[in-house]
Amino acid sequence: MALSTLRIIGFILGLFLITLAASMLLPMVAMLWYGHHEDIGAFLWSSLITFVVGLALTLPRRPQNAHLRPRDMYLLTTSSWLVVGLFAALPLVLIRNLSFTDAFFESMSGITTTGATVLSDLDASSPGLLLWRSLLQWLGGIGFIAMAVAILPLLRVGGMRLFQTESSDWSEKVMPRSHMVAKYFVAIYVLFTLLGTLAFHLTGMGWFDAVNHAMTSVSTAGFSTSDASLATFPKATHWVAVVLMVLGSLPFVLYVSTVRGNYRALIRDQQVRGFLLVLAGVSLPFSLWLWLNSDYAFIDALRIATVNVVSIVSTTGYALGDYTQWGGFAVMVFFYLTFIGGCSGSTSGGLKIFRFQVAYSLLKANLQQLVHPRAVIKQQYNGHNLDEEIVRSILTFSFFFTITIGFIALGLALLGLDPLTALTGAATAVCNVGPGLGPIIGPAGNFSTLPDMAKWLLAIGMLLGRLEIITVLVLMTRSFWRH
Amino acid sequence: MALSTLRIIGFILGLFLITLAASMLLPMVAMLWYGHHEDIGAFLWSSLITFVVGLALTLPRRPQNAHLRPRDMYLLTTSSWLVVGLFAALPLVLIRNLSFTDAFFESMSGITTTGATVLSDLDASSPGLLLWRSLLQWLGGIGFIAMAVAILPLLRVGGMRLFQTESSDWSEKVMPRSHMVAKYFVAIYVLFTLLGTLAFHLTGMGWFDAVNHAMTSVSTAGFSTSDASLATFPKATHWVAVVLMVLGSLPFVLYVSTVRGNYRALIRDQQVRGFLLVLAGVSLPFSLWLWLNSDYAFIDALRIATVNVVSIVSTTGYALGDYTQWGGFAVMVFFYLTFIGGCSGSTSGGLKIFRFQVAYSLLKANLQQLVHPRAVIKQQYNGHNLDEEIVRSILTFSFFFTITIGFIALGLALLGLDPLTALTGAATAVCNVGPGLGPIIGPAGNFSTLPDMAKWLLAIGMLLGRLEIITVLVLMTRSFWRH
Repeated sequence: MALSTLRIIGFILGLFLITLAASMLLPMVAMLWYGHHEDIGAFLWSSLITFVVGLALTLPRRPQNAHLRPRDMYLLTTSSWLVVGLFAALPLVLIRNLSFTDAFFESMSGITTTGATVLSDLDASSPGLLLWRSLLQWLGGIGFIAMAVAILPLLRVGGMRLFQTESSDWSEKVMPRSHMVAKYFVAIYVLFTLLGTLAFHLTGMGWFDAVNHAMTSVSTAGFSTSDASLATFPKATHWVAVVLMVLGSLPFVLYVSTVRGNYRALIRDQQVRGFLLVLAGVSLPFSLWLWLNSDYAFIDALRIATVNVVSIVSTTGYALGDYTQWGGFAVMVFFYLTFIGGCSGSTSGGLKIFRFQVAYSLLKANLQQLVHPRAVIKQQYNGHNLDEEIVRSILTFSFFFTITIGFIALGLALLGLDPLTALTGAATAVCNVGPGLGPIIGPAGNFSTLPDMAKWLLAIGMLLGRLEIITVLVLMTRSFWRH
Repeated sequence: MALSTLRIIGFILGLFLITLAASMLLPMVAMLWYGHHEDIGAFLWSSLITFVVGLALTLPRRPQNAHLRPRDMYLLTTSSWLVVGLFAALPLVLIRNLSFTDAFFESMSGITTTGATVLSDLDASSPGLLLWRSLLQWLGGIGFIAMAVAILPLLRVGGMRLFQTESSDWSEKVMPRSHMVAKYFVAIYVLFTLLGTLAFHLTGMGWFDAVNHAMTSVSTAGFSTSDASLATFPKATHWVAVVLMVLGSLPFVLYVSTVRGNYRALIRDQQVRGFLLVLAGVSLPFSLWLWLNSDYAFIDALRIATVNVVSIVSTTGYALGDYTQWGGFAVMVFFYLTFIGGCSGSTSGGLKIFRFQVAYSLLKANLQQLVHPRAVIKQQYNGHNLDEEIVRSILTFSFFFTITIGFIALGLALLGLDPLTALTGAATAVCNVGPGLGPIIGPAGNFSTLPDMAKWLLAIGMLLGRLEIITVLVLMTRSFWRH
């Protein structure tokens, strides 16, 4: 790792921190607006500290003649998520007198769009604190889309090369175009948030709750302004949340294509179709099951089942009632749903739809090959050839995604957590979903009572999951640091 | 599927049934010897029925000019395991007045060397019944080795081509040699069983218990002659069981190499080393943990932990005490151990060591490739090149192994089982281990109270696991049955 490389990375980290410091001013504005003055000092101090560190990192100027190689991106992505997470925790420490562990957990859960929380009494919290949590998720969401589209395919992590488009080509020639695409992303993301705010408000939320939920649903993140999450708000708002969570789980590149005139881009995409099929194929039978096994009217069973299914599959993590009270079958279903995730190139976490689709097409090809050993079976996905490198990296990724969850769960069990809490806590963290299962961290629970070490383990799990694991693991190989 | 093919398959099934009918005479001999006469009629009738059906299938003579193609082996393996399982259940129905569901579950658990049981009061059962259960596992064990060495590599299922040796070459030229290897297998298997019987007897078991436990430990199967499993017998016998379970989990081909003079065959094999490393790497720290978290003396903690770890990893499934009483961490550890399995080409089930080793080497290569995108990284396993076909089939297998467990668990949950019972029941069945976790099917429990449908689901899971899943799935594709 050359010194000039570290200086560029430091420079970029500095820019991120200055942006973060600026965004800390927004909760202050909210508090002035709502006439709450109690937490303004906390944000002012946090912003100042963050800004000073950011400034110190950018002052040495970006080295003019050096530039980042693709492999330097690994260090850049991991360190930026970590550094932003650390500084974003400052207001939480100052406002709520949280331990640094709790604040870092909450902040990591925010920027990785996980949505697991250690806070309670949300309904009585200052608007500044609530907005800050939502803002972290909203920024984390757009940050991840940018990373998933511009950096991950380039890094060939976990089969993401499947989604390498002109917009992820870093050669000088296409660079301006890549900037263009980024602007489209931000515009679409902001548009969804504004429309979502309006829709939430029209269906019965106050403006403040509407803004917050629009931000945390389009980023498939899941922080709420109420301890009871969506259950606090009118039924119609639940359907607005469903639409926004789905919008946040689709590949943003396809929105850009649609805006540019390719109106069938979304509906012709294999991943989008698979995702919608999963949602419908789970929500409808599960609604029926819930209707038959509860006192709900069908329309309510449909709403409650759909909101929860979409919330978990999209890795948002809003809760609507406590589905762990619906018995073992429901618990099992929601445990499995935790792993699925939305589409690649969205704000969603988890294994993601395309990996399941590729694995299924591999099984089909494998079975055909066994019957016809001499046949040559070409495999495609969404029009891309499934070459050996992509297949290996997708399957290796899925294997180690599972293993990572397994090890974190083992660590949690060693810290004394019961198996259900340990296993579902690890899964919900690495998949960036939010709630686990069981009485402690289930949809009606809270992560605050876990031991500190467990919170650190879970925060690391969130980071690993968000950065598609391999991106972080690369940093732990000897060959990365050699030369 | 040509008619002549079906006739050959029928002929071979008939031979299997005649062998099964003959082996039903052994429990009769045992009962005469021990002066129990109560169950002799049951075995006589079962043997007669089985023999008649077997005779009827072999009478049309084997078609002389036809022969089986590799793809016909899929149908042969699946149908022979099913048919043998059905007829082997007969004595159980007649002796214990079991429902056919219970009898089939027990018989399938026997021949797949799983070891899950619906029977209790074993200690007071007739020697005939006990011997029959052990015999099923013993025959299932040697049957699986033959299949794993002679058929699966040929079928290229789940990356088994890695183990294709001259002995699995079906061309006429090498055929005699393949027969030779089969004789070696049987000889070694019988030798281990005899030595095991002697060792069990010398360490304190009666001859009858010694024979039974030798048969069910060398086949890594796990039926016992006592409800309390190994806990009923003296401490020294536990170590004998450990040695036999390990012997049963190593690749039998390597024993043949050793006998033929290649004395370092076992110790130089990557899979054997990995397996022993896993056993030591889990048993020792876990013994320490148990010692620190219980009232056991260290020597007892070491024995109890080692027996249970080896029992689960080798997929035997003997119990020694109820490790689910040791808290959440132990439960988690044993849940994970369920999946590992022994070496390929042994009597062991589960995912098997080589698949983990290949996956790990893929991760290493993947990380190296990410750091050095242009490097050409050749991968080997045990001296074989890991070509694309092997890698794809290993990873596809592992993925669908997990998915299969997931679906069976979901079905069990839908039938009303709690999540822990459903998940660990499915895993222990597909991995051919035996006990699950939790109060119902845990090491101190029993499968008898489960609903009938759950028993059928679990029996199907055992069969799927034993036949490496893909072998059965092939039969469900359209292209298999076309032409």
